[in-house]
Amino acid sequence: MNKTALMLIGTSASCPDIEYLAGFRAVDPILLCRRGGRIHLVVPEMEADRAERAGDGIEVLTPRMLRRGRRRARGARGWAVAVARKLELTAVRVPSGFPHGVARALTRAGVRVIVLRGDACPERAVKAPAEWRHIRDAQQAAVIAMRAAIAAVAETDIGRDGRLDRGGEALTAGALRALINRTLLEHHCICTDTIVAGGVQGADPHEIGAGPLRAHEPIVIDIFPKHLVHGYCGDLTRTIVRGRAPDGIRRMYAAVRAAQTAALDRLRAGATGAEVHKAAVDTFSKRRFDGSGGDRNKARFIHSTGHGVGLAVHESPRLGPGAGRLEAGNVVTVEPGLYDRETGGVRLEDTVLVTDNGWKPSVPCEKRLEI
Amino acid sequence: MNKTALMLIGTSASCPDIEYLAGFRAVDPILLCRRGGRIHLVVPEMEADRAERAGDGIEVLTPRMLRRGRRRARGARGWAVAVARKLELTAVRVPSGFPHGVARALTRAGVRVIVLRGDACPERAVKAPAEWRHIRDAQQAAVIAMRAAIAAVAETDIGRDGRLDRGGEALTAGALRALINRTLLEHHCICTDTIVAGGVQGADPHEIGAGPLRAHEPIVIDIFPKHLVHGYCGDLTRTIVRGRAPDGIRRMYAAVRAAQTAALDRLRAGATGAEVHKAAVDTFSKRRFDGSGGDRNKARFIHSTGHGVGLAVHESPRLGPGAGRLEAGNVVTVEPGLYDRETGGVRLEDTVLVTDNGWKPSVPCEKRLEI
Repeated sequence: MNKTALMLIGTSASCPDIEYLAGFRAVDPILLCRRGGRIHLVVPEMEADRAERAGDGIEVLTPRMLRRGRRRARGARGWAVAVARKLELTAVRVPSGFPHGVARALTRAGVRVIVLRGDACPERAVKAPAEWRHIRDAQQAAVIAMRAAIAAVAETDIGRDGRLDRGGEALTAGALRALINRTLLEHHCICTDTIVAGGVQGADPHEIGAGPLRAHEPIVIDIFPKHLVHGYCGDLTRTIVRGRAPDGIRRMYAAVRAAQTAALDRLRAGATGAEVHKAAVDTFSKRRFDGSGGDRNKARFIHSTGHGVGLAVHESPRLGPGAGRLEAGNVVTVEPGLYDRETGGVRLEDTVLVTDNGWKPSVPCEKRLEI
Repeated sequence: MNKTALMLIGTSASCPDIEYLAGFRAVDPILLCRRGGRIHLVVPEMEADRAERAGDGIEVLTPRMLRRGRRRARGARGWAVAVARKLELTAVRVPSGFPHGVARALTRAGVRVIVLRGDACPERAVKAPAEWRHIRDAQQAAVIAMRAAIAAVAETDIGRDGRLDRGGEALTAGALRALINRTLLEHHCICTDTIVAGGVQGADPHEIGAGPLRAHEPIVIDIFPKHLVHGYCGDLTRTIVRGRAPDGIRRMYAAVRAAQTAALDRLRAGATGAEVHKAAVDTFSKRRFDGSGGDRNKARFIHSTGHGVGLAVHESPRLGPGAGRLEAGNVVTVEPGLYDRETGGVRLEDTVLVTDNGWKPSVPCEKRLEI
């Protein structure tokens, strides 16, 4: 019998590998051990029945069953040591993010702890057809919500101070976000931090945005829904301007489109994430933007070109410096952007499937700067 | 200068302490170091401006600023080692859940890693007045959504097969959950796993429920919203029956109400979470239910009596076996329940503020079994 096993601890949110491997959604932390093809789950007493229904061939253990003498195994450390004893493990492989307190308890109990270099569950990066369908469900919701948001901006009047006016009221980032979130929910999705960042707010890629939206300024809308039923995510960004865009923003937009096209042109199984990223960086540099993000006083590209999407909205593989080879079945975002402290941000993002010859779109969504 | 600091790594979701201490919402993992009263944050280049706006007296560092010679600090391990060198730390205190791979890298770099026994940020368990207001915002949304759900059940007709019928269509758990989530969103809240568990589904406390709802069966509705603006949570559970409840369910309901009252009677600053839990357990045992959850073939109480609520929906303090002393300012749920594999679950949950003399309700919500 193999004396080494993969060990994971976490909730579905903190460790999607657990949900991926066991098909079990955990609100509170649980422990998963995989030895050979067999999965052992340690769950609180109250979750035992639900865990048993989750999958065939999964052994469900509870603290009561891991009792040692008269003492019940308590907390993640107790569970980990007890399960290692029960399975007679001499070593466990754990991801870098494995809880240090638990690793220390295992070491003290004589179990060797081996830290994995990469993902604990690298197969998660290659999506099965059903997973690709799930991602498209979420992306479809994002596209519908994006169109609703853009339609709402298109219907505004431009006030004398440049504020967007909808039926006598200022259209705010908060109101547009609420419209997006409502639309997502109608399609069984949620997005905790939908971005609607107008003007200079958009210069920070993760600023969610607040306050009245204005004409002639870029508005970055980034929607990354998670489906409430199956848990898969989508990711979509568009940048729009109500009315005429200033020339600087038009140049940024053209560069971002070109960078996205260049990155997509390189995207295929066998290419590296680093190459795809470099295609975007080089496009910016050629157009005299700061592709490597060093100069805070220029319009610059300050994040990677993309990331995997699945049960988590950010997962492997990466499209960035040093990133490795892509495989057919990877699902990634391609999302170059430029950020200027004085005028705001421009980002375009689509989620696509990597294929042997290139890529396939998830759900198409039109791109237009001026609305 | 102090050579020891608290070190945390994570996102706002995986490590709410970071958002609590730095006032910064992190979608991707960041690193926080607290030495004396000073906070140092390491964030990706793209987050630097936003982090600088987050709080006074916070030093914001980026991988570029942590460069060592020509190499930029990469990944959580690189950040941790670089920041320890920059601050000349000889030791760091970390929570048990700190990433093991990072702890190992620190140890190898000659930095001692001390695992904290309890919470990294125990002060989070005592809420400031503004935090209590935030929790009540979320609880208010939960109460409004609960009332909307109960009203929808009350309006149904009981079909010949016992199914609840709303305008000619079966009322399903999914439809009721959608109504709840829509209502929460109108109040700027989301709940990722709203529970609507009818009949035997309710015997699993975390089963979210699916399918047609029926009369004369318990329906457990558990709503734990997170506010989208400030991030604080609420938590509320009611159990209802459309039409007449079977005698067994009535007895369970009466026991759960009595257990909640008994627990609330013990709740005050200075009492232990263990005592409060024991009050609920003893109430069940006196009524000949299984208060300690050992017998899978009886109606039993299989979870703790409550937990803290704040930026996380589950946080310190606990109300359960071995739990320590409560303090004024703690905000906790009190949520005894009984679970019977043959008939379903009954749970009642309110979120309250612990005071010197007892407790204060957050937002009152009526309790009635039969609808």
